[in-house]
Amino acid sequence: MIDFNRHPGSYQHWQFAVNGEVAQLRMNVDPEHPFAPGYELKLNSYDLGVDMELADAIQRLRFEHPQVKVLVIGSANDRAFCAGANIWMLAESTHPFKVNFCKFTNETRLSLEDASQHSGLRSICAINAACAGGGYELALACDEIHLVNDNNSAVSLPEVPLLGVLPGTGGLTRLVDKRKVRRDRADVFCTMAEGMRGKKALAWGLVDAIWPKSAFAEKVQVRANELAATLPARSKKGIELPPIRATATDKGFGYTHVQVEIDAPKRTATVIVHGPQGPQPKTGADYEAAGAKAWALQCMRELDDAICQLRFGYEEVGLLLLKTRGDRKALLAVERDLHSNRSHWLCREILLQMARTCRRWDLTARSMFALVDAESCCAGVFLELTMGCDRVYLRDDDRIRVAVGPLSNGALPMSNALSRLQNRFLKDPAHAARLAQEQPELTAADADEQGLCTFLVDPIDWDDDVRIAIEERASLSPDALTGMEASLRFAGTENCDSKIFGRLSAWQNWIFTRPNATGDEGALTRYGAPESAKFDWRRT
Amino acid sequence: MIDFNRHPGSYQHWQFAVNGEVAQLRMNVDPEHPFAPGYELKLNSYDLGVDMELADAIQRLRFEHPQVKVLVIGSANDRAFCAGANIWMLAESTHPFKVNFCKFTNETRLSLEDASQHSGLRSICAINAACAGGGYELALACDEIHLVNDNNSAVSLPEVPLLGVLPGTGGLTRLVDKRKVRRDRADVFCTMAEGMRGKKALAWGLVDAIWPKSAFAEKVQVRANELAATLPARSKKGIELPPIRATATDKGFGYTHVQVEIDAPKRTATVIVHGPQGPQPKTGADYEAAGAKAWALQCMRELDDAICQLRFGYEEVGLLLLKTRGDRKALLAVERDLHSNRSHWLCREILLQMARTCRRWDLTARSMFALVDAESCCAGVFLELTMGCDRVYLRDDDRIRVAVGPLSNGALPMSNALSRLQNRFLKDPAHAARLAQEQPELTAADADEQGLCTFLVDPIDWDDDVRIAIEERASLSPDALTGMEASLRFAGTENCDSKIFGRLSAWQNWIFTRPNATGDEGALTRYGAPESAKFDWRRT
Repeated sequence: MIDFNRHPGSYQHWQFAVNGEVAQLRMNVDPEHPFAPGYELKLNSYDLGVDMELADAIQRLRFEHPQVKVLVIGSANDRAFCAGANIWMLAESTHPFKVNFCKFTNETRLSLEDASQHSGLRSICAINAACAGGGYELALACDEIHLVNDNNSAVSLPEVPLLGVLPGTGGLTRLVDKRKVRRDRADVFCTMAEGMRGKKALAWGLVDAIWPKSAFAEKVQVRANELAATLPARSKKGIELPPIRATATDKGFGYTHVQVEIDAPKRTATVIVHGPQGPQPKTGADYEAAGAKAWALQCMRELDDAICQLRFGYEEVGLLLLKTRGDRKALLAVERDLHSNRSHWLCREILLQMARTCRRWDLTARSMFALVDAESCCAGVFLELTMGCDRVYLRDDDRIRVAVGPLSNGALPMSNALSRLQNRFLKDPAHAARLAQEQPELTAADADEQGLCTFLVDPIDWDDDVRIAIEERASLSPDALTGMEASLRFAGTENCDSKIFGRLSAWQNWIFTRPNATGDEGALTRYGAPESAKFDWRRT
Repeated sequence: MIDFNRHPGSYQHWQFAVNGEVAQLRMNVDPEHPFAPGYELKLNSYDLGVDMELADAIQRLRFEHPQVKVLVIGSANDRAFCAGANIWMLAESTHPFKVNFCKFTNETRLSLEDASQHSGLRSICAINAACAGGGYELALACDEIHLVNDNNSAVSLPEVPLLGVLPGTGGLTRLVDKRKVRRDRADVFCTMAEGMRGKKALAWGLVDAIWPKSAFAEKVQVRANELAATLPARSKKGIELPPIRATATDKGFGYTHVQVEIDAPKRTATVIVHGPQGPQPKTGADYEAAGAKAWALQCMRELDDAICQLRFGYEEVGLLLLKTRGDRKALLAVERDLHSNRSHWLCREILLQMARTCRRWDLTARSMFALVDAESCCAGVFLELTMGCDRVYLRDDDRIRVAVGPLSNGALPMSNALSRLQNRFLKDPAHAARLAQEQPELTAADADEQGLCTFLVDPIDWDDDVRIAIEERASLSPDALTGMEASLRFAGTENCDSKIFGRLSAWQNWIFTRPNATGDEGALTRYGAPESAKFDWRRT
């Protein structure tokens, strides 16, 4: 299993420092420590291991260092701010790994934007040297981009001209949709390998400020302090995030609140999430005292890890089966306390973590069926995960209650910015609003009546119906299912996030499979080789 | 060259009849007349030739039969309403042909929706028998879907379970976004090969009405008449649409107002559009008298044909170079007359045709550079085509004027529903609004100042700069360019149309290239064969 845990004390690729309200994260990639053997991480290029440290740092700033208001992302390498994703790593990776790597790095960058939008943690990218590809895409995810104004330091997206692939970590989308760079300028910029420097980069809206080299560090620091002064304080003291470690079990792996059972021959994984047990914090101060052990945070962090393990480690598992367990009333009580204390920094962070975990679930390219059986705890955030599934099988059993909780009214938005109720009932927004408002507790039959399940199943038929549905699903083309689910799950509005996963990623996945990129004579394969790429010129 | 012209008098695959305010279009595909040899068009399955007749019929209803308010699309085949796109045709086609075929059929269905939304021509799909895949996707493009309620007739999207590809003609998007079918029900429906019949199809929102077989024709007719009675009359008499025929020239092919020059070694095509010459109609009555010869209509129909010829017949041409020619003032006068007479049915139809042609241009998967040289007529709709290009090279020449016309203020929306000015100036909507309002006539330097070109080029540098830009562009990976352009061209809002081309098509293109669909053991390849498909189960 992959260990996704990282800690600033043992980062290999970043320097992490907190000074009052401003944190510094300086990229300093160790070329000799790639995530997998076989390539060197030259010029601050990155791979999954480097990005896991970045994701960790952002998480720790949110939870461990709430006094920080501004994060400055820079580089400790004088020659390169960041050269982007490591090309040899990409060229050697399997298609599924490449796609999952891109998804993880996209989620990391979105978490940076999420921290800015919802936690008041702004980010400044301080580009001290050459900044290419994924390096500039990281910059695009920051609130401000500051570039050193010298003769060498350019920002660039050279993927198309050099590698025959897209800047797939949100670059194209953020250029035209977030920064609103004019489409023709974006076209020029994305096709010039050398990128743009200084005044031109500023004039074209690719960066927000330029400074001479001699004054760069100082000017960035001044701006960071200035920005910090405009932001309200969150808290002086944070909570510690201990590692999340899965334990191998007979059937798969598990944590405290989350169990995963793998059935390799059937290509399924059953994901069992458990509600809170024992007393839970009620107030913000209680949550500070409980720290990361509080169920609401621990369970979501475990589920996050489990999703990542499934994505990277179980590529052939095509169908996730969700089962919920626990005490519905205890779960809803936790949600009510979190929701009513949402102005407390930690309660808010926990809610934001819940939202991110639910989105990671939505965006997982596996079929997902929720199996709501008699022992289920189909309530609150567990109902959100249930609605995130492609189908909901609900056993017609008297013991079952399906309960809408206080977080279903917008606190856990999908990546298209809709709540799962709004997304589900796009045809009847009033119904979605009513359910969110009234937070009903429904019998199985009522839940069916209210549109909260796909199939209400007679207990006599349950075993057969579920077994057949699973077998049928697992027999279908995994590619067709990925495309179908990406199209059906996210209806309605679109925004930067959903365009990145729905549009940009789809084109990138296509390009990754084409001989023009990854064939023997493709541009990605041939990068750095003496022969240039050979293309099939037919345009499609 | 492909002859895209069709005429009801010689349709091979449809029965076309106009009765007062209601037109009937009945699918009756001749299995023995496929578009290309090698497959039979069984069970009302379709190929490009069948769809060209459908596109022709919709065009003729708009222009030749403005008295028609309702189109009923049915079938003359008792066993099948329509079995969708012909599978053997798809399995045998090259990747570029498949993609272009899907794009053409998507544009045809969108033209049906466009006619409903803007021309008051509603459509009813009368499903008298089995309706599968592309057949149901055609139904989804209609305003109402009526299904015969018997034991055989189902609607279905069996692409995922049977072929391992997507319903790529808008089906997935229209299910959840247009009809707002609940996502879990859409999931079930799209994975069941047999589809759904009668009451269940109605209950799930897949169809709008069901009728017993004995009463079906009558009930549909009653509904068509009822609907027609609610709609305002457009006109009693239309204009005739003669064929559009390209003539081979030394350098390529041409029409009256549009010339195309192919440079095969450079993989470029220069598209030269000419403004109006001689007197043009001014009033609606003038336009009725002039018929299809009026420049505004003729030029757009020619450009439409030219784009289709380039897409299907010149797959290796990667870069289109737009040149505009003619008298700017004459062109703007035509636009002002059309715009001020836009409540006249024919003027409106011509404007809608302009909008569709501009969208077909936007959506063409080739790089496009506009070359605004001294002889240019960069005004009105020609400025729209210019802004539709990925880049605009503007020669810094005193003779040049760039003129915003009256149609740039929303009359020619892109597929994301924005005007090209709004899309271009997403960062500064006030600037877009001001240009649209003031309709300035700008010198080259002013046009550059106002953001209407990418590069203002000194005449001394023009030849070299343009040559180098063309050579550089033509050297890049065609796949990466397709994905990049699809991501950069359409910023801002999204809707059904833009999701179909941006999201659904991207996933479909990916799936089409994957061995799980088109490999030797893929589902599309093996359809109908005794061995079932073999999949690489890794999910991505």
